[in-house]
Amino acid sequence: MKIQDIVLTPVAFADPPLLNVMGVHEPFALRGVVQLVCDDGVVGLGESYGDLAFLDQVRQVIPELKGHDVFDLPGLQRKIAAVLGKAVFSDQHGLTGGFSNRKTIATVYSLFEVACLDAQGHFLGRPVVDLLGGKSRDAVDFSAYLFYKYGAHLGAEEDAWGEVTTPETLVGAARTMIDRYGFKSIKVKGGVFEPDQEIAGIRALAEAFPGLPLRIDPNAGWKVDTAIRVARELDGVLEYLEDPTPGIEGMAQVAAQANMPLATNMCVVSFDDIEPAFRQRAVGVVLSDHHFWGGLRDTQALSKTAECFGVGLSMHSNSHLGISLAAMVHVAAATPHLTYACDTHWPWKTTDVIAPGSLAFVDGAVAVPDKPGLGVELDPDALARAHEDYVRCGQTKRDDVTYMRRFVGSFEPNTARW
Amino acid sequence: MKIQDIVLTPVAFADPPLLNVMGVHEPFALRGVVQLVCDDGVVGLGESYGDLAFLDQVRQVIPELKGHDVFDLPGLQRKIAAVLGKAVFSDQHGLTGGFSNRKTIATVYSLFEVACLDAQGHFLGRPVVDLLGGKSRDAVDFSAYLFYKYGAHLGAEEDAWGEVTTPETLVGAARTMIDRYGFKSIKVKGGVFEPDQEIAGIRALAEAFPGLPLRIDPNAGWKVDTAIRVARELDGVLEYLEDPTPGIEGMAQVAAQANMPLATNMCVVSFDDIEPAFRQRAVGVVLSDHHFWGGLRDTQALSKTAECFGVGLSMHSNSHLGISLAAMVHVAAATPHLTYACDTHWPWKTTDVIAPGSLAFVDGAVAVPDKPGLGVELDPDALARAHEDYVRCGQTKRDDVTYMRRFVGSFEPNTARW
Repeated sequence: MKIQDIVLTPVAFADPPLLNVMGVHEPFALRGVVQLVCDDGVVGLGESYGDLAFLDQVRQVIPELKGHDVFDLPGLQRKIAAVLGKAVFSDQHGLTGGFSNRKTIATVYSLFEVACLDAQGHFLGRPVVDLLGGKSRDAVDFSAYLFYKYGAHLGAEEDAWGEVTTPETLVGAARTMIDRYGFKSIKVKGGVFEPDQEIAGIRALAEAFPGLPLRIDPNAGWKVDTAIRVARELDGVLEYLEDPTPGIEGMAQVAAQANMPLATNMCVVSFDDIEPAFRQRAVGVVLSDHHFWGGLRDTQALSKTAECFGVGLSMHSNSHLGISLAAMVHVAAATPHLTYACDTHWPWKTTDVIAPGSLAFVDGAVAVPDKPGLGVELDPDALARAHEDYVRCGQTKRDDVTYMRRFVGSFEPNTARW
Repeated sequence: MKIQDIVLTPVAFADPPLLNVMGVHEPFALRGVVQLVCDDGVVGLGESYGDLAFLDQVRQVIPELKGHDVFDLPGLQRKIAAVLGKAVFSDQHGLTGGFSNRKTIATVYSLFEVACLDAQGHFLGRPVVDLLGGKSRDAVDFSAYLFYKYGAHLGAEEDAWGEVTTPETLVGAARTMIDRYGFKSIKVKGGVFEPDQEIAGIRALAEAFPGLPLRIDPNAGWKVDTAIRVARELDGVLEYLEDPTPGIEGMAQVAAQANMPLATNMCVVSFDDIEPAFRQRAVGVVLSDHHFWGGLRDTQALSKTAECFGVGLSMHSNSHLGISLAAMVHVAAATPHLTYACDTHWPWKTTDVIAPGSLAFVDGAVAVPDKPGLGVELDPDALARAHEDYVRCGQTKRDDVTYMRRFVGSFEPNTARW
């Protein structure tokens, strides 16, 4: 079951002006879509980052993978490691924690591992979840992912979500999202306003949606003392507190004082981070993300390691399309120790590259596709349009800071500012 | 791909009088062989312990598994856990470390997981290694597993290996085994004689086979101080020192003073043991064993967890037949972080239940079968003979102590005797 050809398509899709510590989302989010064209017309799909620095590394690897057997995943990893050597990819947007050679190889590998598993599934006539050990659950829970946001991109009309900068508008956005998708937990992207204002936002959500698990993620935007204060003020209100402060040591200091678990997708981002973080009891929840944890199988291994140390598992999300969502759903379904609803940016996008119908949010959950492979199909016209958008938008990396400065000239990114 | 019928066959095979801390191997070793008869005539094979206490638990589970989909491994685990409830299986022979409900469920599950994976492989036309992520290696290294031994069973003629009780005869047995199979490392089962005599045995092997990695495993037969002394005397001679003393705390005390890594298949035998052992840096190598670690997938997860903490991975063996060897080979091949040659009792047996030809030791390694599933076939006549031997021998559990007392009336099992 050999790879005959590999097509990498950079795509862009419209993204609202969502706020975070580094600034504001640009008008387009970028992704890279890979098609592995294999024997017998089988095509395996993968999706990951669209930053040029990442695509350049993927492009280096592609010539080496022609003729590779999609069942030989260890060989795939060896080839990728050999091509990339000591390379370190950094997306430079400041929201994803550390970078390392190991994480770089894991990230490039993941794109192809998912595509190989999709191809395997098509070849064998089985859904990817079955290649990962079978379904621990029939549907995967996701949380409503709320952002503070501007009402409109520069020079554009106000979008359907409008401006979200107050507790009241935050509750309104949550209401819309929950009415539409049935989410049963809420995550708020924080680090945008002063902590007291964001505490007020969480309190307003707790009042409006009693009993719904709540989380806030200021992307390491707070100093240790501030994080401890927020943890105390939101004790009994938050399900978990995500990346309140930078670094394993800082997180350990906060964790020692906080009653709720601390979650992270910034200080534990690679298997190398596990030992120091777990020894220091720095985190209570790891937000897995197959895109940088080395694919679906290594995400499952991460889960088991976390389980051994009494650490919970949730799932991180970047702005993504349907191929990534399908991969997330399959691996989440095959992972028994997944202790929280997963993150998704799904509600914020209006277009996709996959044919509609295979993935739907019902009661906040996505049913695991039972078709072969990932269970999603590329829509060639949609892919072409998304590629046109990529070419037209001219973005080659994510840069929330520079875009934010066009709104607020004096803006400085918030790295533990408060 | 449903299970239509399940056939469990207890079998026995002749085993030489091998010595260990608990006494001496009885004339027969017991195993249980399971056949999952599935749709379309596909049969999945599994092999595990043959102790009656274990078979009784397996028999409880069997009625619940008819109609189960072999691709639904999480569902299989749930069903087994539900049937077994709080049950704890103990083999009572004292050589396998602790028992727990979790380990019990993992052990019963493993038997069926392997058989389901074999069935999956036959159904899909792929070797099991491909269902585990693909081959990290084409052949799996094993070590020569030396025992001190009596020359003959009670009332029987001397076997081909003869008596092995001195450094000279130990070297002789090693020479035979290495000449025959090409092993490139040697493990000695210790805890039989006074430590100084066993140190002399290791030194003799080191002299006879310069450069060959050596290990000794006294099955927790030494006190902490003795273990530390042996570790010092064999510094630079042993590749690793296996279970010198009982318990995680004792092992941690020895590990703090020993220059070589300590290995274990007695104090870390379940995912519950990982955190205490790794926090205390009690072990440098875990001897995985899919039979009690919850199957092939969980063995892979164990490997990744060990890798995160800089702990090596090797593989433990009980007396086993070809189905177990095939399963060991497939999971070992699919596990990148397997840092030592695996254990096997293979040379000590003279019969099997599988058709010959699919597994061979060449240069101390077994090539990964590339046929569908485990790549081994039952030999129905051999199975029938082994079942006859089971019925005729009358053994229902392993009891090295009682048998030893027929040789040495005053024998007391050695639990940290020295």
